[in-house]
Formats: sequence, structure tokens, C-alpha cells
Amino acid sequence: MLERVKPSAAERKRLQDVSASLLCRIENLARERGLELRAMLVGSAARGTWLAGDHDLDIFLGLDEEADLDAALELARSVSSDRREKYAEHPYVQARIDGFDVDLVPCYLVDDASHLRSAVDRTPFHNRYVGKRIPGREDEVLLLKQFLKGTGVYGSELRVGGFSGYLAELLVLCYGSFAAVIQAASLWRPGLKLDLEGQGRVEQDDPLVVVDPVDPGRNVAAALTLDKMLQFAAAARSFMAGPDIDFFFAAPLAPLSDREIEARIEERETLPLLIEFAAPDVVEDVLYPQLRKAESSIRALLERKGFSILRSDVCTYGDRAALLLEMEVWQLSRACRREGPPVWQADHVYRFLAAHPQILSGPYIKEGRVVVEEERRYASAADLLAAELPGLSLGRHLSPSIRCGYKIYMGQDLSAIRDDVYRIFLAEYYQARFRIA
Amino acid sequence: MLERVKPSAAERKRLQDVSASLLCRIENLARERGLELRAMLVGSAARGTWLAGDHDLDIFLGLDEEADLDAALELARSVSSDRREKYAEHPYVQARIDGFDVDLVPCYLVDDASHLRSAVDRTPFHNRYVGKRIPGREDEVLLLKQFLKGTGVYGSELRVGGFSGYLAELLVLCYGSFAAVIQAASLWRPGLKLDLEGQGRVEQDDPLVVVDPVDPGRNVAAALTLDKMLQFAAAARSFMAGPDIDFFFAAPLAPLSDREIEARIEERETLPLLIEFAAPDVVEDVLYPQLRKAESSIRALLERKGFSILRSDVCTYGDRAALLLEMEVWQLSRACRREGPPVWQADHVYRFLAAHPQILSGPYIKEGRVVVEEERRYASAADLLAAELPGLSLGRHLSPSIRCGYKIYMGQDLSAIRDDVYRIFLAEYYQARFRIA
Repeated sequence: MLERVKPSAAERKRLQDVSASLLCRIENLARERGLELRAMLVGSAARGTWLAGDHDLDIFLGLDEEADLDAALELARSVSSDRREKYAEHPYVQARIDGFDVDLVPCYLVDDASHLRSAVDRTPFHNRYVGKRIPGREDEVLLLKQFLKGTGVYGSELRVGGFSGYLAELLVLCYGSFAAVIQAASLWRPGLKLDLEGQGRVEQDDPLVVVDPVDPGRNVAAALTLDKMLQFAAAARSFMAGPDIDFFFAAPLAPLSDREIEARIEERETLPLLIEFAAPDVVEDVLYPQLRKAESSIRALLERKGFSILRSDVCTYGDRAALLLEMEVWQLSRACRREGPPVWQADHVYRFLAAHPQILSGPYIKEGRVVVEEERRYASAADLLAAELPGLSLGRHLSPSIRCGYKIYMGQDLSAIRDDVYRIFLAEYYQARFRIA
Repeated sequence: MLERVKPSAAERKRLQDVSASLLCRIENLARERGLELRAMLVGSAARGTWLAGDHDLDIFLGLDEEADLDAALELARSVSSDRREKYAEHPYVQARIDGFDVDLVPCYLVDDASHLRSAVDRTPFHNRYVGKRIPGREDEVLLLKQFLKGTGVYGSELRVGGFSGYLAELLVLCYGSFAAVIQAASLWRPGLKLDLEGQGRVEQDDPLVVVDPVDPGRNVAAALTLDKMLQFAAAARSFMAGPDIDFFFAAPLAPLSDREIEARIEERETLPLLIEFAAPDVVEDVLYPQLRKAESSIRALLERKGFSILRSDVCTYGDRAALLLEMEVWQLSRACRREGPPVWQADHVYRFLAAHPQILSGPYIKEGRVVVEEERRYASAADLLAAELPGLSLGRHLSPSIRCGYKIYMGQDLSAIRDDVYRIFLAEYYQARFRIA
């Protein structure tokens, strides 16, 4: 296993060379500009815990607390012309340099982690904490990271909601080894709290709390969702029962063919409804929460009107985004019940009946209330969506995008979209199989 | 109005003659047998509050508290050969005599209504209480009774759950006149308590409590349902807004023709499911609660499995009984979700997965639990009923009757049943219109 995940001597050398020369170049540039600045390699590359084949470098540009971050950003822009600007809590530059993806992140150099000005200022402290303690256990971290990847729970971005690299490092420090992490995780349940330095002041009731040793009020596992935590626990239990290299390297699913899409729909006899539109031009961490919020608003609309959903999911491919709703009930009777006010509220009863002039049956009384039966406005889920989707409030960037245009694909129409990323999403959606027992 | 509901002088004379000679004959029969017995005319005939055309006589055979009711029953049997035996709290005889339907009911003569041995012993007290106070207001009672009939809320039998004759009499005594009852009832809401003698000890929280003046612990309106109480209140309000003779004499609905049944089903796009079987040979007051209980068990079964019901009802016609379920959702996707135990309960997870070997999707984790998607056992409501109805516990007399054989009519098959009573039931079911505002 380790052979496949551990960087070779050549790879290590190359990373060291590239990063050393880059740090040197940046500090020279700073000196030219009269800028007091310390360039630091941080993250897994700095700690010797990067997975073979990864070509990511995190370089922080540390300034005094009085300095202006904009000057550092300006400098970062000048490092490479092959760059994009990104925005997390502060703006930073993502550049392609010598075959590496380099994040150039301005930050303040703070004396004490309790005086942070922003989240990125914390990273140098993480670097120092782990850098001091991890030597000798880098391989354990590599195994754990690859296991997290292989079981689909690696990455603290909001799209994934899984484990960050720093969290993996802390777990190894906490339990001692990859095997010990697996053994412990196989018994995890929500509400677990890990505190390496025994000084936690974390108040949240996240499913897993790992107190940040450099900032005792912060939960390192705050982005980890309940389901991803338990997916890891289940995979750990399953790995202990039958260790296998497949846990580390999951075979990727092939895109579904037209025939496979047709077969899935036929064997399930559900109705898939796919709402597709242009993905707004924002980073994933902004887009995904909005997609999830839209998903749950649309589910609520459908369920409020009497339809029922087997499962749903969201995806992006190319410049498109889509919500998939797999319907369990997508057609209702034309007649529907409308419950009115209690019979003794004469005024309300009068207004209720005036508002429902076209009655199929009724008015009658049920459990003290006036009831009429009338024609349902939308007897099919597709009609309801087509009529009410543009009016729903679906999030700051999503609403305008959907108002600009969207398309609903129903049933077999799903195969009208030929994109491979989309079809892999469909393959994963319909399989939805995880290592549980 | 009164002309139509008030018995003519000839009708009154005939009722008096028949009842006087009957009382005389019964007491002679008793004397021949050496039986100490007092025959009494009770009920509306005794109080002058029967509706024109009614030919019911209630004759009570009063015995000393030490005597044996069986002797009185034996005597009742000898009064007429055209008779049936019935059973309420005690057995009694129903006979056809000189064109009248006569109930011959043995009872004890009790000094004080607080020492009753059974419910029937109370009737002579009611007779005395009303008989003393009603003279001069018989016409008001007749109007109220006919109004209750015309608006579908007359009768305290469990099939109806409406107003008894005695309750109508007490309402007139309480409010003073028919018009005053209507005026008061138009403002009724649940929780109302009426206590003519101001000595009530009624604890129940029935929607309407009318303390029995001869037995202060009893609610005369105990059998009245919330919906029938409010149906009367709504009709009263509606009558005040626009008085009309139709309130007293509702035009009876005609049986639905085949074409009309077809049209109703088509305009509603619901699926009616009718479960039909032999009505067990028990009185209505035993049968109807069981039919209602069966209705709600079957509704619960269907809803538990994901189907949805617009409305349902029960009926009897000839020697048949039937449950009508009008489905809003009667077909579900083949795929369905099964939620298992929390992921950390390893043994339960193992057993859950072993019990669901044929998986369409999953296992995956949702909100901390293991979930699989598999084939649904019954994707249609009719299949579910056909499979599970015989196994349901549907009441003492109904279960054996249904196990002996039943038939499910779906959609247009409803017109396969040609019975007129059944088709009037369908007409009423599909109209379900009451005078509300």
C-alpha cells in the first residue's frame, strides 16, 4: 500500500527544490518592493504528509499585524501570469508554477493563536504544531488520507463535508497510528469529543468535536457532516472485518450509457425529474450550500402538495448545475380536499366558501371543520415544478440563474444530456453503495 | 309546515285507541298469569310529540324490583305472533300490531332514578319529566324533530350519531321554542353544557353536554358526534339567513345510473375501491361501530404503506355491507426506501442488511441511519388490500364475515352492483353537500 501512496525520493526532491526556489523568489520580490514579508511553505507539503502524485503547494505570505494585506496580494499576482484570483475569507492567488498548483495566501503573523485576525492566520500555527509532532508518523497519515479518499470522505469543502488533511493528522497524533485510528473509528458514534491538549472550550454539539490544539475554542471537525463521519466509521468496521486494498483505491464508476439509464428507470419504476440550469460563476463552497438549500425548498414544495420523493441529489458538470428528484409519487387524483375553518367561525366559513366556488363535493364537516373537494391545481409533479419553480426563493446566486432559464428532463429524457461527469454522477446516484458491513 | 308534520285528529284518535286497547290486553294477560305488572305507553306517542305518519309505539312492561324480567318477556312474546326478538341492554320484543310497530320492553319500576338497574328503567322517568312540562309546546318539538330529520341529524343510533327525540324535547324545554332553539344553535360551538335543573354532575367532555334532569350524572347528548352537532348548528345558521321549507323536507337523492357513476369517477380522477361482503347478522348499533373501526384500520394500513385516501365511507344494503375508499394515490414507484438502525449499532445493522438481500440501491447512510432501496412488496393499493385484508383484525363479527369472502370493486366496476340503496349511498357520497352557509 505505502509504495503506492508514498512520494518517491525523486518526487520529494523535486517538491523541495521547487518550493525552496519559490520561497526564495518571493522573498526577493518582497525585498525589491521594500515589503517586510515572510514566505512560508505550509500544509501537507511542509509536513511531509502529501500523497504521491499530489502537486499542491500552499505558500503563505506572512505580514506584520500593522501591514496591509493588499500589498502582499499585489506581490502574489506578480509571481506568475498563469493565475486565478480566489476568495475564501480573504482574497488569494492560485497559480500554476513548474507543474504545481500553488496557493499564495497573504496572512498576518500573529504571536499567539488567540489573537487571530482571520482563519488563514491560524495555518502557520497548525504547521508548527503538526511539524513538531508528526515526524516518524508521516506514513500513518498517508495511509489514513488514502483510506479517507478511497471511502469517499476526504475533503472538508462543503460539497463533500468530509475530513480535512489537518484533521487526519490530528487523528493520527491522537490515536498513534493508522491502525489505531481505524480501530477506534469503528466504534465511533455521534457526540464524540477528542481533545489532544485537554484544554477544549468547544461549545458546539457537532457530531464529532476535535478541539484545535492551537485554538481551543475551535472544532477542527466542524465541516464534517454526521453522515460522512459515520460513513468513515462504517468503512473502518468493514475494513477490520475484511481488510482489502479496494478500501484505499475505489474502482471509479463508468458513465452510464443510454441503455443503462433506461434500465435503471425501468427497474425502479420511479420518475426522475432533473432540473438543469447554468451554474452561477461562484466557488463550490458558495454554490453547494445554495444547491442543497434549493434541493430542500423544492422537496418541501413537492411534499406540501402531496407528492413524494424517494431520494434527491445535486450535481455540477461543465458550466451546468442540476437537481435530481427521484419521485415515488408524481401523479395525484384531480379531486383534492381543502380544509377550511371551524364551523362556528361564521365569517371565516363564509370567506372560505366564497374562495372555493368550483366544488366537486361538499361543503361537509369533518372533525369540526368545513371541507370542500375541488379540482387540484397541479395534479402532476412536473406541472407543479414548471409553474412554481421560477417564483421560489432559491438562494442569492441560484435564483437569478434559474430565472434566466432552466430545463426539466423527465424519465427517459435523462439520457438527452451527454456529459460524462453527469453520467458518472447518475451511476453513483443509482448505485449509492457504501462499505457498511 | 305544521300541517304536514302534525298528526291529524283521526290519526291521534287511532293511536289512542290502539294503545289503550293494547295496554288493557297486556294487563289482562298478566293477570291471567298471576304476574304483577304495569304496562305503560312511553316515548313520543305518550307525550304527543310524534311526527305525522310515524307508527311506532313504545310500551314498557314494569315489574317490581324483586320480579323476574323473563316472565315479562315471555308475556310480551304472547302478545303477537308477528314479532322479532331484539337485544339492547336487555332482550325485548318488536311486534307488528294493528298497523303499528310496537316495542314491548320489560323493565323494573324504580322509585328513584338514581337506583336504576338498567338504561331502559330510566325511560318511565323521562316520560314523567317531559309529560309534565311539554304540554302546550308539542308543536315546537314537532318542528324541531322535522328540522333535524330534514338536515340529516335526527337519530341517536350509532349509524347516525345525531339527536334523539328526548334530546329534541329537552332543547325545546331549555330554550322555549323551535325558533329559540334554532337561534341558539346557530352560535353553538363544541364544549357547550346545558343543565335544565342546574344540578349536573356530568364529567365527560363530549362536544355537547345536556344533563339528564332525571339522572344528573348522564349526558343525554352522549351519542351525538361533533360533526352532527356542528352540522345542525350550520343548518340553523343557514336557515336563519334564508328560511325555507326544504330544510324540513330534503329532496331525496336518486340512485346513480351507470353513466353517472362513470362521470363522477372521470371528473374526479380518483380511484374508488369498494370492499363488499356479507353483513353479519347483528343490529346496526353493533354493526356500524365495527364498520367504522374496519374503515379506520384499512385507512391506516394504506397510509402506512404510502398510499393516500381522499375520503372513505361505509354502507349497508340488503344483506351486504361495504367500505368505500376513494384513493388520491393508489400507485407507487416499485423502488422504496427502507430505513435501518443507526450505523453504530453494528449487530442491528448486520441483521438489517441480512434481512434485505435484494437491494436496488445502497446501503447508504442518511441522518445517521443505514438505508437501502429495494423492491416494494405492493406497488398498488388494490394489490395491498387483496393480500393483507384477510389477515387484518377487523372486529368481532366483521373479521369472520370478511374471511368467508369479500370482493373488491375498482373504478368503473362500481356499477356492477345494481342495488338502489347502494346507488343512493353513492349519490350521497359523491355529493356530500350540507347546508353550511
